[in-house]
Amino acid sequence: MKKHNFSAGPCILPQEVFQEASKAILDFNNSGLSILEISHRSADFVSVMDEAQSLALELLGLKDKGYKALFLQGGASTQFLMVAYNLLEKKAAYLNTGTWSSKAIKEAKLFGEVEEVATSKDKNFNYIPKSYSIPEDIDYFHCTSNNTIFGTQMKEFPATSKPLVCDMSSDIFSREMDFSKFDLIYAGAQKNMGPAGTTLVIIKEDILGKVSREIPSMMSYSTHISKDSMFNTPAVYAVYVSLLTLRWIKAKGGIRAMEELNNKKADLLYSEIDRNPLFEGFAAKEDRSPMNATFNLVDDSYREKFDKLWKYAGVNGLNGHRSVGGYRASMYNALALESVQVVVDCMQKLEK
Amino acid sequence: MKKHNFSAGPCILPQEVFQEASKAILDFNNSGLSILEISHRSADFVSVMDEAQSLALELLGLKDKGYKALFLQGGASTQFLMVAYNLLEKKAAYLNTGTWSSKAIKEAKLFGEVEEVATSKDKNFNYIPKSYSIPEDIDYFHCTSNNTIFGTQMKEFPATSKPLVCDMSSDIFSREMDFSKFDLIYAGAQKNMGPAGTTLVIIKEDILGKVSREIPSMMSYSTHISKDSMFNTPAVYAVYVSLLTLRWIKAKGGIRAMEELNNKKADLLYSEIDRNPLFEGFAAKEDRSPMNATFNLVDDSYREKFDKLWKYAGVNGLNGHRSVGGYRASMYNALALESVQVVVDCMQKLEK
Repeated sequence: MKKHNFSAGPCILPQEVFQEASKAILDFNNSGLSILEISHRSADFVSVMDEAQSLALELLGLKDKGYKALFLQGGASTQFLMVAYNLLEKKAAYLNTGTWSSKAIKEAKLFGEVEEVATSKDKNFNYIPKSYSIPEDIDYFHCTSNNTIFGTQMKEFPATSKPLVCDMSSDIFSREMDFSKFDLIYAGAQKNMGPAGTTLVIIKEDILGKVSREIPSMMSYSTHISKDSMFNTPAVYAVYVSLLTLRWIKAKGGIRAMEELNNKKADLLYSEIDRNPLFEGFAAKEDRSPMNATFNLVDDSYREKFDKLWKYAGVNGLNGHRSVGGYRASMYNALALESVQVVVDCMQKLEK
Repeated sequence: MKKHNFSAGPCILPQEVFQEASKAILDFNNSGLSILEISHRSADFVSVMDEAQSLALELLGLKDKGYKALFLQGGASTQFLMVAYNLLEKKAAYLNTGTWSSKAIKEAKLFGEVEEVATSKDKNFNYIPKSYSIPEDIDYFHCTSNNTIFGTQMKEFPATSKPLVCDMSSDIFSREMDFSKFDLIYAGAQKNMGPAGTTLVIIKEDILGKVSREIPSMMSYSTHISKDSMFNTPAVYAVYVSLLTLRWIKAKGGIRAMEELNNKKADLLYSEIDRNPLFEGFAAKEDRSPMNATFNLVDDSYREKFDKLWKYAGVNGLNGHRSVGGYRASMYNALALESVQVVVDCMQKLEK
């Protein structure tokens, strides 16, 4: 039985992508070679990297607008560090909306002064702070668009004259936006884009070159830009599978089509959470994430019964993160509406 | 036609590994899920990581000797930086045997004084320097065991009372050695171990904690050790395929069996290079690498004819690196003796 995979990341990718990704392990592009054994300098792979970079910019509406797309290793956790290494000369402002923002702040503090403009820590990060001001004497402002663990999402982004940096690991390619208001976007692949092991970085080139410190080669965006993400051997397979997923997004109608389906899935689940007296949502309603829905049983004694129900229905990865408890349904792009219906059915069965 | 793959890296892996790696993309461990969509915190993957770390130590004879094995992202290029971040307080000594040593030296210089104890740059790195002394006032000594680009290999390692750090990216698991004389070994996976995207780091724990600087989380070996390589989402698939290859090495008889076959392959090819008047080897005979054989045509006007011959025979990846020119045959663990025979046949055909 095929599973309904609600895993928070690494997570579900399109079935078509798995099929093609599996074939390429045995024979890539009819080359007689596995994608795992070809040189990253081969024409075949250089064209994979070029297309992936170009398609990422195209889907975000950022082509020919001064941006570069990079595929790097090390995950968003390495970006917490690279952002500060490359951009933080004196002071930066951070919005703290959860675990990942907190980690980003911790790393940045090694490089300069960090002002936390607001935090929702007082309520275990179940909302997005809204009224705060961003100082003018900063090198950049950093925020996290979607909080995988707490199930909140920024619906609006603050206006600032300074570079706007955003960790979009868990909602990139999921909703339409004017991405050109951001100067640096980064995202670990393992949600809406591909397998764990590569990180997409979208960077406006004119924000670079403004810090006085010497930056180690691997930490320098300029190094990676100058070598088109090939300064060192890239994560060949993770980039290839990301390309397959980006092609799938485009073929399905781009980010607009993803957003439409994501909203349907979110509406279906959140309506049931609000209707069903056995459940309650964790995140503040206006800040709910369509990517990660966090919810709890009102009476935890039903846990065993509910767990049995969804596991029997073939649902995977519904347990909440330890910081929140309860349940978390991650509904990334590749998850079908019918999978959400299966969870809703389980919730209704429990009620009966 | 299946190719004879002499690519320098990413490179050939065992066919059995490709078969199993391809299946796991569609269904991992009969879970109904792809290996690409499971959580890295799932019991199934935690056991992959544990076994990979443990098997790496076992194959190297380093179990229960105070070492930890880590699977990190960022390649050897990130290790150039991490080694210095974690170990360089005042001064380190480096042996410069080629492109990768030079890059390691460059990154280390950002963190302290670097003494280059010897270099073979005078002869385009075609030999390994031998008579040099290692100062006593250093934090560690760094060397590169095998030089992929120039085709040289260190047969002996110098004695030093200071921590011995070695980049073994291109010959780890290929030859027997007393690995316990090293304090830190690192190797990008994409030669003898797995696909690009993960890096094995073997580290003796007691060398850590001796520098005074604050180390960013992702750059800190201690962070990764404390979280068993799971501080951040690891490169799940690259680690899994590495495990498959490590299991294959063990099943074939361990490093001893690999070395035996590697020596046969190297003898076959180098004998032909020395016998055939049309060819000449690049590296000094006593320093020749069994992993990467570099050679040139004595008369370059035969190039087109020779290239046609080996390409027609199904050989892939025989072109030399631009720093050396000519040809490079990379004969990693998974390459069959018969593939080397195919190249030798082409060399003999050219002679006729």
